[in-house]
Amino acid sequence: MTILKGHQSWLFRDKPALLSSGTVVGPFEGRGPLGRDFDIVHDDSLVGQDSWEKAERTYLEEAAKIALQKAGMTQDQISFYIGGDLMNQITSSSYAARTLAMPYIGMFGACSTSMESLAIASYLISTGGAKHVLAGTCSHNSTAEKQFRYPTEYGSQKPPYAQYTVTGAGAVLVASEGDGPRVAAATIGRVVDMGITDPFNMGAAMAPAAVDTIVSHFRDLGVGPDHYDLIVTGGLGEGRARACQRPVRQASHPDAQDAFSRLRHDDLRLRQADGAGRRQRLAAAPPS
Amino acid sequence: MTILKGHQSWLFRDKPALLSSGTVVGPFEGRGPLGRDFDIVHDDSLVGQDSWEKAERTYLEEAAKIALQKAGMTQDQISFYIGGDLMNQITSSSYAARTLAMPYIGMFGACSTSMESLAIASYLISTGGAKHVLAGTCSHNSTAEKQFRYPTEYGSQKPPYAQYTVTGAGAVLVASEGDGPRVAAATIGRVVDMGITDPFNMGAAMAPAAVDTIVSHFRDLGVGPDHYDLIVTGGLGEGRARACQRPVRQASHPDAQDAFSRLRHDDLRLRQADGAGRRQRLAAAPPS
Repeated sequence: MTILKGHQSWLFRDKPALLSSGTVVGPFEGRGPLGRDFDIVHDDSLVGQDSWEKAERTYLEEAAKIALQKAGMTQDQISFYIGGDLMNQITSSSYAARTLAMPYIGMFGACSTSMESLAIASYLISTGGAKHVLAGTCSHNSTAEKQFRYPTEYGSQKPPYAQYTVTGAGAVLVASEGDGPRVAAATIGRVVDMGITDPFNMGAAMAPAAVDTIVSHFRDLGVGPDHYDLIVTGGLGEGRARACQRPVRQASHPDAQDAFSRLRHDDLRLRQADGAGRRQRLAAAPPS
Repeated sequence: MTILKGHQSWLFRDKPALLSSGTVVGPFEGRGPLGRDFDIVHDDSLVGQDSWEKAERTYLEEAAKIALQKAGMTQDQISFYIGGDLMNQITSSSYAARTLAMPYIGMFGACSTSMESLAIASYLISTGGAKHVLAGTCSHNSTAEKQFRYPTEYGSQKPPYAQYTVTGAGAVLVASEGDGPRVAAATIGRVVDMGITDPFNMGAAMAPAAVDTIVSHFRDLGVGPDHYDLIVTGGLGEGRARACQRPVRQASHPDAQDAFSRLRHDDLRLRQADGAGRRQRLAAAPPS
């Protein structure tokens, strides 16, 4: 029996079902366009904890419990908890795994951790290696800023193109049968480094890998962008996600190196435009 | 088709083969009892790099290349690279994955990363989800000390029971057929936290989870300690590994809570003995 498709994709013949999900976010995310869709929107991004790290863990534990409750299941019915986060040694996930007391498979893929965990969870379910799997991930703006940029307490200025790491957690319960969306396939990406080193612009660093993974998915499954109603990526930011569209649309004649070069060019152009816009804004509103 | 056995174990009917391996270590490890068994023993733990982190990555890249060379294979024949390490955001593995340019599944399980990666690799191979998988992990004493204790440059005193994180890397090539050892089963463990907070004594922190995983393995597979010629754990240190033997041997009548209590008791006793021994040694050799 083989479900490897092409070089790096899995085609799930028995498509796993997403039985239920739990989503918990902070106040900023609650005010966003998806605000009404989250299970819990906290007013306090610390959720009563005494550190951002403990708050992040709390978000994840809540998301996991909501997913279990919605499915009417208990922890001992779950074969494995699969997940990770952005912290050193995926601390938030490991402490949540202690609370959840389930056999635990720790993952790390930065922004891709959520889909990496879902891919492995779906694989295990579709091949009979688990009865139910809980896949989850979390981040907290104030822990991520501390890890990758400057602690939020510093109040540092950020460039206008800087992105914002979510304060929130999501967990999904995967099973072989049941109502809910089905996972049909998964493609595992490579590390594609185009030399972007700006920690405020992680979208630009990730965009080439996003394009590479989507184009590899098309190649392995023998489909094109028209096969899908919607192609969703995460973590790229608006400008970078837009810049990815052209190489992805042209994937029927993939010329990866060329697409990447254009992506890098677009990125430089966007950053220059950002900088020019910022200078204009500063000129229009001089310090009083 | 199901290969889930018991609550948290996988039984591989088509047992994956370990085709080849690559091992690279530093000078201290080369002087140890396994010194002659490693493929490369470096004289310089920095291996010509300008940071410990870059050195760690170099060890891993070398180990991966040796494993490929021994099997006479090239990077493009490998479906997935699976691995992780002890660094923030598993940096060493992610940069090695960039060099290897293979589809990459990042994992984190601290000391268990090696077996976690091998378990997932074996699972993928045994279920037809990959043709060849490279599983690897690495650590460097000087990066780990910096992360978890104090930078080695400080020359801090360490208690006599303190363990030593390996400078080295290992990689193994897993395939569905071929000569070499076979992987017959895998059990995924839980986080078991008995409240040990001493960063010099990670063996004590990990021992309860080691016992829990081994006992779960016996329970799931319906075997006992007599089923194996040798039970090998990693990272526990001599005292803690010895302390694990009793609860593992008594696993035919597992009373987990009781076994853990004894383990904790043994740990306190060992640490007291360590402390007393140290005071005696200090008394015997007063500062000149």
